[in-house]
Amino acid sequence: MKLSKDWVVGFVDGEGCFHVGINAHKEMSIGYQVLPEFTIVQHQRDVQLLYALKEFFGCGVVRRNHGDRLSLRVRGLKHLQQIVVPFFVSNPLQSRKRADFDKFRSVVELMANDRHLALDGLAEIRRIAKQMNRGNLRESPATSET
Amino acid sequence: MKLSKDWVVGFVDGEGCFHVGINAHKEMSIGYQVLPEFTIVQHQRDVQLLYALKEFFGCGVVRRNHGDRLSLRVRGLKHLQQIVVPFFVSNPLQSRKRADFDKFRSVVELMANDRHLALDGLAEIRRIAKQMNRGNLRESPATSET
Repeated sequence: MKLSKDWVVGFVDGEGCFHVGINAHKEMSIGYQVLPEFTIVQHQRDVQLLYALKEFFGCGVVRRNHGDRLSLRVRGLKHLQQIVVPFFVSNPLQSRKRADFDKFRSVVELMANDRHLALDGLAEIRRIAKQMNRGNLRESPATSET
Repeated sequence: MKLSKDWVVGFVDGEGCFHVGINAHKEMSIGYQVLPEFTIVQHQRDVQLLYALKEFFGCGVVRRNHGDRLSLRVRGLKHLQQIVVPFFVSNPLQSRKRADFDKFRSVVELMANDRHLALDGLAEIRRIAKQMNRGNLRESPATSET
């Protein structure tokens, strides 16, 4: 299965999720771990689509999400910074999900500069993350997981 | 907003629904009305996307679905037969939704030949409709509406 760029943008406009988790984490010196993730959840009948998307992006992990649903998840900062973010900068989302992506992109950039390891940087990330996925809380696969 | 064909296919792979309703209807001589519909449901924050899709296809009605969700719905047989079906024949869906579309297309073709007005044709449509949207009952906006 060969996916075109525009198809991927359209599909992610519908099914994709950009999420930033901030979790208490004892082993981090600042006490918190920032976890940005790009996720696409599908019914297991469309698992071949998740693998095609994984091949398209050249990164991510396909795993069971919950019940009969699977997800492609990209968490690696390097993959987010070097592959996922540049792709959606060059191929803009058409839905309001674009506003979430813009915030996601800011967080990834802050992290690339190690700002999540400093208190003020963490506070800024927390402020940005709080404004994400507000219009579609029920739709966010990453949110429903926590 | 200008949508590309591939974007529309990707978005419909994620968010579209092909549904065939068969309802008891006293005024139809055969006693039943066959209602094929192509629907895309979105949160109201993305209403501009539904209007862009309406413009893209050149048909359909945007209306409130339930709560904070709106839908673009194409029900007219002529529009389905002359616009929606040919578009997805030329620009194939990549997900398993394509199997639903193929069944939807068969029903629209049967109706274009007035087969829904004869008992055996209606039985055939009923048999096809029964096999649709089986893998994603919870996702089907048209199903959740009834």
